Parts: sequence; structure tokens; C-alpha cells
Amino acid sequence: MPTYKAPLRDIRFLMNEMFDFPAHYQTLQNGENADPDTVEMILEGAADFCENVLSPIYHSGDEEGCHFKDGEVTTPKGYKEAYDQFVQSGWQGLSYPEEFGGQNLPMSLNLIKSEMMGTANWSFTMYPGLSMGCMNTIMQFGTEEQKNTYMPHLVEGTWSGTMCLTEPQCGTDLGQVKAKATANDDGSYLISGTKIFISAGEHDLTENIIHIVLARLPDAPQGTRGISLFIVPKFLINEDGSIGERNGVSCGSIEHKMGICASATAVLNFDQAKGYLIGEPNKGLHAMFTFMNTARIGTAVQGLAHAELSFQGSLPYAKERLSMRALSGKKEPEKVADPIIYHADVRRMLLTQKAIAEGGRAMIYYAAQIADKMTDALAQGDQAKFDEYDDKLGFYTPILKGFLTELGLEAANLGMQVYGGHGYIKEQGMEQIARDARIATLYEGTTGVQALDLIGRKVLLSSKGKVVREYTGEILKFCGRHARNKYMRRFAWDLTKICAQWNALTVRILLAARKDRDIVSSASVDYLMFSGYAMMAYFWAQQAATASEMLETGKGKETTEFYKAKIKVADFYFERLLPRAQGHAESMVNPSSTLTSLPADHFSFDY
Amino acid sequence: MPTYKAPLRDIRFLMNEMFDFPAHYQTLQNGENADPDTVEMILEGAADFCENVLSPIYHSGDEEGCHFKDGEVTTPKGYKEAYDQFVQSGWQGLSYPEEFGGQNLPMSLNLIKSEMMGTANWSFTMYPGLSMGCMNTIMQFGTEEQKNTYMPHLVEGTWSGTMCLTEPQCGTDLGQVKAKATANDDGSYLISGTKIFISAGEHDLTENIIHIVLARLPDAPQGTRGISLFIVPKFLINEDGSIGERNGVSCGSIEHKMGICASATAVLNFDQAKGYLIGEPNKGLHAMFTFMNTARIGTAVQGLAHAELSFQGSLPYAKERLSMRALSGKKEPEKVADPIIYHADVRRMLLTQKAIAEGGRAMIYYAAQIADKMTDALAQGDQAKFDEYDDKLGFYTPILKGFLTELGLEAANLGMQVYGGHGYIKEQGMEQIARDARIATLYEGTTGVQALDLIGRKVLLSSKGKVVREYTGEILKFCGRHARNKYMRRFAWDLTKICAQWNALTVRILLAARKDRDIVSSASVDYLMFSGYAMMAYFWAQQAATASEMLETGKGKETTEFYKAKIKVADFYFERLLPRAQGHAESMVNPSSTLTSLPADHFSFDY
Repeated sequence: MPTYKAPLRDIRFLMNEMFDFPAHYQTLQNGENADPDTVEMILEGAADFCENVLSPIYHSGDEEGCHFKDGEVTTPKGYKEAYDQFVQSGWQGLSYPEEFGGQNLPMSLNLIKSEMMGTANWSFTMYPGLSMGCMNTIMQFGTEEQKNTYMPHLVEGTWSGTMCLTEPQCGTDLGQVKAKATANDDGSYLISGTKIFISAGEHDLTENIIHIVLARLPDAPQGTRGISLFIVPKFLINEDGSIGERNGVSCGSIEHKMGICASATAVLNFDQAKGYLIGEPNKGLHAMFTFMNTARIGTAVQGLAHAELSFQGSLPYAKERLSMRALSGKKEPEKVADPIIYHADVRRMLLTQKAIAEGGRAMIYYAAQIADKMTDALAQGDQAKFDEYDDKLGFYTPILKGFLTELGLEAANLGMQVYGGHGYIKEQGMEQIARDARIATLYEGTTGVQALDLIGRKVLLSSKGKVVREYTGEILKFCGRHARNKYMRRFAWDLTKICAQWNALTVRILLAARKDRDIVSSASVDYLMFSGYAMMAYFWAQQAATASEMLETGKGKETTEFYKAKIKVADFYFERLLPRAQGHAESMVNPSSTLTSLPADHFSFDY
Repeated sequence: MPTYKAPLRDIRFLMNEMFDFPAHYQTLQNGENADPDTVEMILEGAADFCENVLSPIYHSGDEEGCHFKDGEVTTPKGYKEAYDQFVQSGWQGLSYPEEFGGQNLPMSLNLIKSEMMGTANWSFTMYPGLSMGCMNTIMQFGTEEQKNTYMPHLVEGTWSGTMCLTEPQCGTDLGQVKAKATANDDGSYLISGTKIFISAGEHDLTENIIHIVLARLPDAPQGTRGISLFIVPKFLINEDGSIGERNGVSCGSIEHKMGICASATAVLNFDQAKGYLIGEPNKGLHAMFTFMNTARIGTAVQGLAHAELSFQGSLPYAKERLSMRALSGKKEPEKVADPIIYHADVRRMLLTQKAIAEGGRAMIYYAAQIADKMTDALAQGDQAKFDEYDDKLGFYTPILKGFLTELGLEAANLGMQVYGGHGYIKEQGMEQIARDARIATLYEGTTGVQALDLIGRKVLLSSKGKVVREYTGEILKFCGRHARNKYMRRFAWDLTKICAQWNALTVRILLAARKDRDIVSSASVDYLMFSGYAMMAYFWAQQAATASEMLETGKGKETTEFYKAKIKVADFYFERLLPRAQGHAESMVNPSSTLTSLPADHFSFDY
């Protein structure tokens, strides 16, 4: 049974040695709050909470699941107590403004806290996680009155929030949303419709739940240009700010899911529920997209979280389980057999998990710095700068979300595989991680949706490949700086090749798409995965560069082995995982006709 | 919710048009029983049973699971009735000798029946499936008395059987088996020990359960050379053949598993249980290996089964679900959006599932013909011929088991992916397939074990690569025959290249292994997957060849579209799945040191 231990050594490596978060924080308006001592206190406090409060209820929460009765949802044993402790420690307000009771720390610290919490217990973390979408929306688009009404409670965590987008007939294609809003005389609205898949849509953790709901005004244009956003609280708020009567929104049921069973996924019925318009009429989807990147990066974290947790479960098992002898001879001759960690193939699995977890973490932490800069620009009211960083993050987002969640699922499955048959048994705890990881490629836009966003919107339409040229240009500069370092030579060379290939593939598809528009879809997932492997290679090379610098300058003398291990895992990544990019490269350039020319009725002649 | 429909058109294509089973059956001793009318009757009877009896209790059996109370196991609602019907229809005895009440039909028909049953309901199929291992062991190694005591009931299906190998401390490494057998005065033995993961180890479907148990005699040598086989019935048999008193074997619990929840996986405690030696003392493991290939091919079927069922679930959904518009323009403009089957990326997923299911089926049916020839040689007492076919099957087995179960899991996950978020919801039925498919890469030897068997035993040790040279030689002859056919040219060319590469990689690893013994393990899974992609390419090319012949000769005029679709899917396979082999090729040739040189204690510095 994996029990979470926060990987603080690796986190500190990224924050202090590789990305220089202390210097980064000094560039931010709210950076002075994030002095090294405070950051250290937050890391250790989060680790303590995750290891001792969230981790112990991870498996039991899955076994018990959420309970639904008469419209009420009860979370599993221990979740309410853990949530209360979360609120009391002020974790929810970490990166929210002081005027609403928050601690106004950079957004990246919030993300790193969420990574730890999500790794310890993803289901739990979804409850406060969904509130963030709600808070961000209200902060950005709400009136002063709306902010003052809702934010203090949301920031405190005594209220929580949701995002109500999906309906039975549509998820990705939000233009099909049917929920309706009609105006009352007092400026409020009545909302009616059914929303499904609402994470944290109903539960017993907070006094109130604030739903952000997509719905149509009576005169709204069809499609995506006719969707507005509404605040619909579960309990109406009295004029004095106290909680009033129950609103017309009820939970019809909760879903029975493959995993994340301790997270309540609600069907919400809005029946003339009182709501308040937020932002401009018919501009709801646009508002929604403002925080799309940060929300999706929050989900991308799940990839590394489940890779990490699964690795934490399989590593000790591989050291303990005795089976057969290593091919190169007995390693522990006094035992009846060698621990399976001495089998090269078992190491291949462990190192794959480790490379995904640590490579993913590096990618996320870098994105977190961009998110900090975005938030900073927003706070300074600098829209141009905000847009610049948002564009930059927009290129990373689909790669991080699509690629990391696919690899996280692979890593979670490898964790089971290390256990052999025992991995399939619930009490070992490994299969839960694989079930929990499975949702990550589906929600917040499937891998296919991320892939189309990347190649269609970010690479081809909006930049004609420029974004890839610029990004690979940055990588090539890095290669130039490190080409002569003995540890770095091979990484620089492989990176140079993959950058050239990335640009060539982009141009090839750009040209092909002029005649073959479906190729943008047929190539999309291969393009996403290729991009992911290339990008992760860059982040592994950066980790190796930092490690080799620490070794060469003797700065990290006391933990030499840590840096040597980093370089070895980078080696592993380049030799064993990066080659997969070639299969994707070869596959994506084929014309779409192989996929599109088979008539729909000829997919089967039997059923 | 997928409901199973037997893919009879595809099955008939393989049996009648591609592999010419009618001619094949004429070469077998028992082939005259398998005349075309009988075969047809069996296919339709099996389809009817699977579609109308087994499929309807697939999902409900998962929801309910097996019940354990006071050592007794109750199977889910409807399983006992379905099993009784299975017995009454004589399905268990299909390929077993007439002297024991069977129908003496070729083994391949049994496998095809099992494929249909397993696709409709894998959990159910495990109960009669485990009996086969038991029956094969008794038939081959039992005394006349043992055969007469057990076989008629097992063939009838009123008794079932198990294979009791695994113990808590060992699964793969059976040399560690601790169960003990001591001799009684009457020639029987007393067996004591704990066996785990015993599929069908306890249940309410049959009157008796006959366990085949691995245990050690008191004077047995250590390790694998000291293991004997015993027959241990749940209920002892009276002299008149009737069922007597309860034996000293009891079910301590059943496992809570990720999937195949309707299949009872028992912990069995043997406490001075009466047993009977079968075969020679200390030669138990050797006997066990006699049927290893056929048992593992039985498990390989799971790969294609879950690919097929998942495809059957996702295809209608993709035709119905409306979301967005195809990139090349509206396909069904009268609807609010296009069915998702018009998105090229959705087709990529569907075609991957289809290519795996149909490619896997072709591979299995070919192996089934070899199994027929083996059984035929055995019946004729021709050991040399048996060994020859066993060797041939020995090359296919790890590829089929390892590769097809990995791809089956991928296909099952793609089935969920086609559904988007709905795929994660239990009532849709798609996530069950992914959970059920997950066991296939773990039991009957993990993928890693298959890979080591392939590259270590089958390719390097016993043949120094000859087996690959011979197999690719066969493929190259095929290429020669088809090089000028307009449909076949590109397949012949790609196959020629991959054959050359397969041989080159084999030689390269053979040479490297002289100095770097761990490379056999470090390269193993990549080698297995490369071999699988190459082999499946050959079987897709063969399907295309048959289809193009049917088109050219006008033989299949009435189903022209079926053959055209076959060729298109072969195209898809070569363009979109075969390229993955390149990543494996590039990865496997790297030295093992990247994997082995990291000290076990340096895999983590945090835990």
C-alpha cells in the first residue's frame, strides 16, 4: 500500500537549484511575501498535512466512496475532518488576495501545494480544486458586490465552488448548451436545466456551494456566442451576508465511476434556481477560456501526481519482493532469490515511472512560473503582458495536459505491473492509482481535444508554426551553451536533432493541411505526443545540466549521489523514452484518407 | 453498454477464406468430425449462447461480484443457471475424447468457442477455462484409474478443475514453492500449504472441484527440480465413484480485484488434504510446462476479446454522439453537430481497436491450427511431431500472450476514450472492459516474463536467432509471391524491411549479450513488442492478400465492401501502428548499463 511521502528533495532541486524560484519571486509584486523561509515553511507544512492527514484516507475513501441519499451527499469517513483542518490552516487562501483573507503568495506555491495534495489524495484535492475555477471567475469578472459577497468565504474555504458546463448532450461542444436563464425584475435570473459531471457539485464539506453555470438568455444567439455565465449559490445569501434559504438547485444523483470514488460527481438539476449574471451577456464562453490554461495545467498535475505515487508504491515492493536471479549473476546470494529491482526489465519500469514523475514535475514548475507572471500582469492591470504570457502558456498547456496525463496513466499501470498479480488486488493499493489516473485523459478536454488545440489553434492557425520555431530556438540556444560539457554532449546532440524534426514535421503538416484539412485531426494526437516527448527531453536535459553544474562546481558536495542519479535518469529518458517520438513522427505524416475514406457503415459487417 | 454480437463474418473469413480450415481439418485424425455443417452449427450455437446467455450477465456480474461466507463462494446472479446451460449443451467436452463423453472435435474449435465466450463474458469463461488445464494434465499424465475417475465429470462440466501454483511468496519463481506432501501408507499423500490467486478455486457452479497442486515431497531437491504434482479433490471420491466426504482443503477468502469480479480468485488452505501423485515425483514443473503454450494462448485470446468488445461498445457511440463539425466540412448538416465518427482522430481510435481485434484474431486462429496439429501428434503418439509443433508454437506463444494482451488493454482504454467522460462512468459499461483487460498482462506470466521467455529461451538460447530467420524467411516468401499485386506492393515492401530489421536486431542483441548479459532483460520487452508489431503486420498483409484475391477473382462479389474494408484496415495498420516498432528498435539496442548502474538505494532520495 503506497503511503505518500512528499518528494521535498526533488522539489527543492527544481525550486532552488534549477529554476531559481527565489530570484523569480523577487520579480513579482507579491514576491516579497515568498521569502525563502516562508516558502520552506509552506513546503514542510504542506508535506506534513499531505503525509499525515490526506494520505491515510486515500485508500479508505476509495473503498467507501461517496454516499447519496435524498439529494444529500456524504463524503467518506475522515474527509470532513481533513477538510476542516485544511480550512483552519488557511491552505485555500494561499495565493488569493489579502483583502479577501488570503495570503497573497505567488500562484506557483498554490500549484506546488496542489501537487502534493493531489499526489497524496487526488479525490480530496478536487473539492478545494474546483473552488479555484469559481474564485478566479468571480475575481476577474464579478462586480465589487459579488466579490465581497462570495470571495471571503471561498478564500477561507468554508464555502466551495463549482464550474457547471457539461450537459447530457454535450461536453466538448459547449455550443449545444441548453440550460436557460430568464430575467427577474430585480436584476437576478431564473436558471433551469440539467448539468452533469459536476465535480464537488454536492457534498457535506462546506456551508455553501457556489455554482458558476453556463446558460442561455432568451434572446441569445445560437451556438457558442450565446452563452452567459451565472453565479448560482446552493443557499441564497441574505442581505446581511448570512446564509439564507435553499435555492432551486438539487443533486439528482452522483455518478458511479471507475475511480476518484471519494470525489462526488453530481448531476445537478436547476429548476428556476436564482442566479446572478457574471460578466457580459453572451460572453460566458470567452470568460470561461480566460482561465482555461491554468485549469488545464491543474489537471496536467494529475499525470505527474499518479506517476509519483505509483512509483512510491512500486519502489519498496521491488526492493523487497524476491524472485529469480539477475541475469548477470546473483546479487543477494544469501537470499532464496534476488529482489526484483535487480532485473533490468523491472528497472525499466521503475525508471519510466521516475522519469515521468520528475520530468513532469519540471515541466509543471516551469509553467507555474509563467502562471505567476500572468497573475502578476493581471494584478498590475497590464493586459498586453497578460496576453503575452497567456500565449506562452497556451502552447505549453495542451502538451502538459495531454501528454502528462497519458504518461501518468502509463506510469500508474507500470506500478501495477511491478507488483505482478498482486498489483491487481485492491488491498495492495496500486490498482486504485491506475483507476484514479484514468480520468485524467478524459476530463478538462480529452487528449484528442488537447491535441487539436495544440496543432490546430496554437501551432497552425494562430502562428503558422512560429511558436514551435521560437520554442525550438530556445532549446537550440541551450544546446549551444552545453555542447562541450562532457555530461551534456549527447543530450545537446539528440535535442538538436529532435528540434529539427519538430520543425520539419510542423511545416510538413502545415503544407499538407492546405489540401487535406482532415490531416490536422488525423495527425493531432501523434503530433501532441511527439511534442511532449521532445519537450520533456528538454526538461530532462535541463535537469542534467543543473546536476552536472552542481557536480562540477562542487556546490552540492553533500548530495553528490542525488545529482549523479539525475544525470542517469536523463540518460534513461533519452535512450528509452525519447525514441518513441519516432513512431509518432512516422505515423502522423500519412494522409488522412486512410482514416477518413472508410465509410462509417463499413467499420463492421457484423454489428 | 456494449452487448456482444459474435463477429461471425470475420470468423468465417479467417476460417474459410484465409486459413482454409476445412482443408486443415481433413489432415487431422479427428478432422472428419469437423465437417463444414458441424462447424457452422457450432459457430451459430456458440454465438447464440454467448449473445443471449453470457453477454446479459457480463455487467451485472461485475456489479454484484462473488460472495464469500464461511468458506463458501456464491457466484453472481444468473451464473449458476448459465453454467448449467453450458453443461447441458455439452460445450465443455467439445474437443475432448469421446471415451470420456466428449465430442472429439479439433482443439481449434474449442479455442474459437472460448474466444466468443470470453468476449461476451470473460469472468464466466474462466470457470470452465481453468478446467481445461486440469483435464489436459490428467489426460497426459494421469493413470487409467485417475482418468476414469475424473475425466468423465470434468468433460461433462459437472466437476471443474484448477491449477494451484502460486503461493504468497512466489508466482513466477516456482522454485520457491513451499507446499508439502507426505506419503500415506495407501499410496496417497497429505498436502499442506497455502495457495493464492486460484481462479475458480471455490464456487457454487459444480458438484466438485479437482485441484492440481504443486507441492514438495519430503526428500525433494530444492528449487524447481523438487516439485511434484498432485490431484486434490475438494470432495473425496468414494470407491463407487460417487462424491464422498469433504477433503482438507478450504477457501480462506477471495480476493477483491480491480476487475473480472465475477470470477472467484481464491486463497486455498490445504491442511493435510488427501492428494494423489500425478506423473513422476519431482517432475511436476516439467509436466506443467507441457501445456504452458496452449494455456498461455488461451490467455492471449483475452487481448483480442477485450479489443473486440470495446470496439463493439465504442462504434455505435461514435455513430450516435454529436459533437463539433468535421474539419473538412459538415457531414450531417441537418443535425446540430456531426457524429464523432467523422472526426479523423476518433476514427484513429476505432481503427486501432479494430486492427487489434481482427489482427489478433488472425494470429490466434493460425496458432490454433498448430495446436490442432500438436494434439493430433499426441493422439497418434508421435512425440517427435508433437515437439516440432510445440517448438513452433513456443515461438508464437510469448508474442501472442505478451503483445496481444498489452494491445488489448490499449484498445479497451481507447474504447473509454471514444466515450469521453462518459467512458469513466460504470453504467456505460466501457470501464469494466478496461478493468477486466488489465489482468491479462499480469497473470499466466507477466509481459516481462513473456518477453524474457521469447528473447532468452526461444530466440537466443535454444536457437541463436534461427527461429527468427526461419519465420522471417516464411514472410519473405509471402512477399515474393505478392510483390507485383497492386494492393499488396506496399505491404510486401514494408514487410521486407521489417524482416531485415528483425534479424539485424536479433543478431545485434545476440552479440551484445556475450559481454552484457543483462541486455537480454533490458531489451526484452522492446524486443517482444517489436516482434509483435512485425508479426501482426504479416497477419494483416495476409488478410489483405486474401481480400484482394477475393476481389480480383470476383469470388466474394456479394460482399465486396467487406474485402475493401479489410484492405483499408491493413493500410491503417501499416501506416499508423507498425511505425511504433521503430521506437522499440531504437530503444532496445542501448546497453543495459543505463538501467543497471543506478544503485538500488539511489532510485529515490526522498523515501
